[in-house]
Amino acid sequence: MPGLESVRALTFDVFGTVVDWRSGVARDAAAILGAHDAELDWGVFADRWRALYQPSMERVRSGERPWTRLDDLHRASLLQVLDEFGIKDLSDADIAGLNRAWHRLDPWPDVVEGLGRLRTRYTLATLSNGNVSLLVDMAKRAGLPWDAVLGAEVARAYKPLPEAYLATARLLDCHPEECLMVAAHHHDLVAARSCGFRTAYVHRPKEFGPIPKNDLPAEHGHDLVVADFLDLANALGT
Amino acid sequence: MPGLESVRALTFDVFGTVVDWRSGVARDAAAILGAHDAELDWGVFADRWRALYQPSMERVRSGERPWTRLDDLHRASLLQVLDEFGIKDLSDADIAGLNRAWHRLDPWPDVVEGLGRLRTRYTLATLSNGNVSLLVDMAKRAGLPWDAVLGAEVARAYKPLPEAYLATARLLDCHPEECLMVAAHHHDLVAARSCGFRTAYVHRPKEFGPIPKNDLPAEHGHDLVVADFLDLANALGT
Repeated sequence: MPGLESVRALTFDVFGTVVDWRSGVARDAAAILGAHDAELDWGVFADRWRALYQPSMERVRSGERPWTRLDDLHRASLLQVLDEFGIKDLSDADIAGLNRAWHRLDPWPDVVEGLGRLRTRYTLATLSNGNVSLLVDMAKRAGLPWDAVLGAEVARAYKPLPEAYLATARLLDCHPEECLMVAAHHHDLVAARSCGFRTAYVHRPKEFGPIPKNDLPAEHGHDLVVADFLDLANALGT
Repeated sequence: MPGLESVRALTFDVFGTVVDWRSGVARDAAAILGAHDAELDWGVFADRWRALYQPSMERVRSGERPWTRLDDLHRASLLQVLDEFGIKDLSDADIAGLNRAWHRLDPWPDVVEGLGRLRTRYTLATLSNGNVSLLVDMAKRAGLPWDAVLGAEVARAYKPLPEAYLATARLLDCHPEECLMVAAHHHDLVAARSCGFRTAYVHRPKEFGPIPKNDLPAEHGHDLVVADFLDLANALGT
């Protein structure tokens, strides 16, 4: 792939890009909360929980609150969503169990094979806002062959802050231009590119379930635009 | 194994415990430097390089120099050893190539099978003074199935400083007593235990080649004393 010969490491956004958070969260919410309210649309519940994701990180990015791992942000957001949905009297064990839904997300169908091919030539690392233990649990369950689990918690900075990208590149002993950021979200790729990373946009049209994704690749000039991880492996010749 | 039921993560020392640094460094030194002096004992060369390891880290631990990754400490030590051995006029490429010998060390024969068994039940993480990229390169080459590559560089503290152990446990979302430190060196295990870790001593009698290892397990009261990683897997029932 012209221009990408210097790339040595692929760094991956995870939620939405590697795994399908919406259906996984909805599945576990139905299993754990279904007895409380069988009528709820658990996809909508997942959407609402996810809607609190950026605002919760923004409080950390802005310095309003000190470094807090994503598991703890997720838990605070969950308590708020449970309250909004009128779900009461949940046990601590159920709250903790549901919060770990994010550790049990399934990869998109192309992911394991695609990563297996990409790993033969490149170092594969997470560059996610998820905390290390969340990503390790997910990888063990789903068979994701990461060479390194890095990103926000190790950098102590949430994307899109530059330090999240730059600290990850440093730990991989790569110059930024030796890293190809792979994500299904333009804002993530634009931030990575502003740090010097190369960028690959992956279409994940089902990320938001029935809600169309308002994310138009043509505007952004990424190094690669691919359909999935098999297409990425093809594009990189692995 | 009584008393170890709460252990969720195994954290591994790497140099000496997982890989045979002496023969690997000697091999690459012979290959790269052999043309300069075919008469040298490359095992002795490796020993001398390794002898500068603790003093180089001590300058970082003491605050005499700021955080410096092990690759850079290794390089400074290498220049000193080359000078001591009277090896001159080495190209920058040869120096860089030889310094990467530490990225190309071979595991002891039991390691890959043992880690494969242990990984079915436990999270496996490095807790090494090696930098992340060194450990990632080593793991990719040798097929070491780490779930997470952690330790000194991520903690920005070299063992045996407590922060090296505690930061690794935090990133794994484990209490210290949920971590079992696996090492072939008592000083490492004693430091881990003082942080609350459980400890497993692994015999690696060939670590120093022909030089007997002056390291007597009976004195230290570790939770486990095992012959190798297969023995460790047996002891933990995996």
